[in-house]
Amino acid sequence: MSQDKSLSRQFNFCAGPAALPLRVLEQAQRDLLSLPGTGASVLEISHRSPVFKAILHDAETRLRRLMAVPDGYTVLFLQGGSRLQFSMVPMNLLRDQAADAQYVLTGSWGLKACEQARLEGPVQVVWDGAATGYDRLPDDSSWDGSGRIAYRHITSNETIQGVQFRSEPEVKDLVLVCDASSDFLSRPIDVQRYGLIYACAQKNAGPAGVTIVIIRDQLLERSADSLPGYLSYREHAQEGSLYNTPCTFGIYMVGLVAQWLEEEVGGLVEMNRRNQAKASELYDALDSSEGFYQGHAQPDCRSLMNVTFRLPSSELDDLFVERAEAEGLCALRGHRSVGGIRASIYNAVPRAGVTALAEFMREFRDKKA
Amino acid sequence: MSQDKSLSRQFNFCAGPAALPLRVLEQAQRDLLSLPGTGASVLEISHRSPVFKAILHDAETRLRRLMAVPDGYTVLFLQGGSRLQFSMVPMNLLRDQAADAQYVLTGSWGLKACEQARLEGPVQVVWDGAATGYDRLPDDSSWDGSGRIAYRHITSNETIQGVQFRSEPEVKDLVLVCDASSDFLSRPIDVQRYGLIYACAQKNAGPAGVTIVIIRDQLLERSADSLPGYLSYREHAQEGSLYNTPCTFGIYMVGLVAQWLEEEVGGLVEMNRRNQAKASELYDALDSSEGFYQGHAQPDCRSLMNVTFRLPSSELDDLFVERAEAEGLCALRGHRSVGGIRASIYNAVPRAGVTALAEFMREFRDKKA
Repeated sequence: MSQDKSLSRQFNFCAGPAALPLRVLEQAQRDLLSLPGTGASVLEISHRSPVFKAILHDAETRLRRLMAVPDGYTVLFLQGGSRLQFSMVPMNLLRDQAADAQYVLTGSWGLKACEQARLEGPVQVVWDGAATGYDRLPDDSSWDGSGRIAYRHITSNETIQGVQFRSEPEVKDLVLVCDASSDFLSRPIDVQRYGLIYACAQKNAGPAGVTIVIIRDQLLERSADSLPGYLSYREHAQEGSLYNTPCTFGIYMVGLVAQWLEEEVGGLVEMNRRNQAKASELYDALDSSEGFYQGHAQPDCRSLMNVTFRLPSSELDDLFVERAEAEGLCALRGHRSVGGIRASIYNAVPRAGVTALAEFMREFRDKKA
Repeated sequence: MSQDKSLSRQFNFCAGPAALPLRVLEQAQRDLLSLPGTGASVLEISHRSPVFKAILHDAETRLRRLMAVPDGYTVLFLQGGSRLQFSMVPMNLLRDQAADAQYVLTGSWGLKACEQARLEGPVQVVWDGAATGYDRLPDDSSWDGSGRIAYRHITSNETIQGVQFRSEPEVKDLVLVCDASSDFLSRPIDVQRYGLIYACAQKNAGPAGVTIVIIRDQLLERSADSLPGYLSYREHAQEGSLYNTPCTFGIYMVGLVAQWLEEEVGGLVEMNRRNQAKASELYDALDSSEGFYQGHAQPDCRSLMNVTFRLPSSELDDLFVERAEAEGLCALRGHRSVGGIRASIYNAVPRAGVTALAEFMREFRDKKA
């Protein structure tokens, strides 16, 4: 059942660092000792060399084209993952603003982002899904808040609970900040509706070690001179992501993934269509299991990226993971904080892998139900 | 003159990201599609999987063995480069300590570290080599300072100016903090003499994107609870470098480089011997040029890692770089802030490359002097 026996590659449902397109890995492998015409590996060249600057420019240009990023937005390639963004966002946008930040808590990551913001300034929690185990999303109308608002923060897809906003919530003239780590590049979004979007790469965009920030230029003015250099969006923007040595290999890989999205997949509309089809196949397997598989998310909030469910007992959860692994279906265990099963079906997970998993789910249920 | 025509690899004198051992690149290339027994690339596996935890453990164990890191020290793998350490050091060790930090300014990087510390607390500059263009190092006896001292910061090797401490300066009972970015793993050091050592990987230890911190455990107590999570050494130590998703590929590569140092080179004593021999060959070429090549550093402060010099004119500097490049001797231009020539001869630059450069220097001078 493995994807390519000669390579011993298996179907990989890891929540991140996640599967990468085979074609991207093959190109990186081919050129790892020496980038064509360069005489050195991409790992060995100066971040200020013309060769690397072209790689950086290519990665940014492809992201801008794929996402239709309008003028007036800056794209940054940083380090430190979303966790560092949990702090950089309020350090840059909330500190000394005489305003509150608003946080919408739709799952574990929104909660962690909010905790970090509280260290920097006043925070209003405008919605919290804790009471129902973060299985749903708010209606727009249920949000409120008062006074001056620096920004409103959402998590577009909660990787652990498997709930995902279908589209941008209406925030009127508020600055919308979005942790898009786990659905970045999985579908078209309307960038103009956001003040800032951030995403670690290791779900849909590349390997761990590079974090992408897309920020409305006007917001760069909020970065105080007193901020530590590395933590200032303005510094990074002024230096074109070369304030210091970035994760050069990570940026190179993001460029290759973006190239794959443009040239092989054909863009984010098609990518979204494929992701919807993959998710439908798995959710159908859930819904037709007569309750054997219990999905965590409410149906209208289900994530297209992380399909979370439970079996009738934790012993069966364990057996499911073990048997699936033996069939070449890997990394299906739910996050350690919640247990159960999680199938992460990011861009690079092929339809064939999802079909194989859906079949396995039916067979497993037939034997155990 | 290239190292291996079939791969088109050239001799690479880049200051960083710098040359990596060919054997390391070959192993990474071989396993890039699928780590043996894993069914996935090292780029695609969870940082919490047993496979990655073994990689992390191996990298740490090898570093500890190579450097003889004693008990009572924690090794961390972080992101953000030395620039983020310029801020994390004072955030963790200086903030709220009712004490001053002392900085020894031996070049561009020490100066930048000091600028960031000033944003966090009171700083004493105990020595500044600016007056002579950072071409020398202080005598221990020339340092003073008064009051409570949180730590004293040095830069063991200044990459831009090419000056390097031969051994740890005597600091008595002060906490010594060292930016060892550009001579880390190039020679044995006495770790016990340091409170904290930090180094970005992209000189001697691996690719850009991973930063190594070795910290005396007692100092972890200084990290305040109010620090942003990602910026707290204590948080990272408590989570064994898995506070969040680290730069997994970078850590994997650090492990391969450490394996090369242990198994191919035979340890840091031998590495240091090789580095001394390489540096001698280049400095001999300088000293025997009858003034055609003018070294920047005073002879007793010369770096074994970055050999910096000038030709009689900037036009000749340019011609030297251009002709060298044509001969497969790459990335010899001095840092943009100081000009001239810089040959970075880190661990992975082979003796053959240095010999080729020394020969080229003699030939170039014979034609132009």
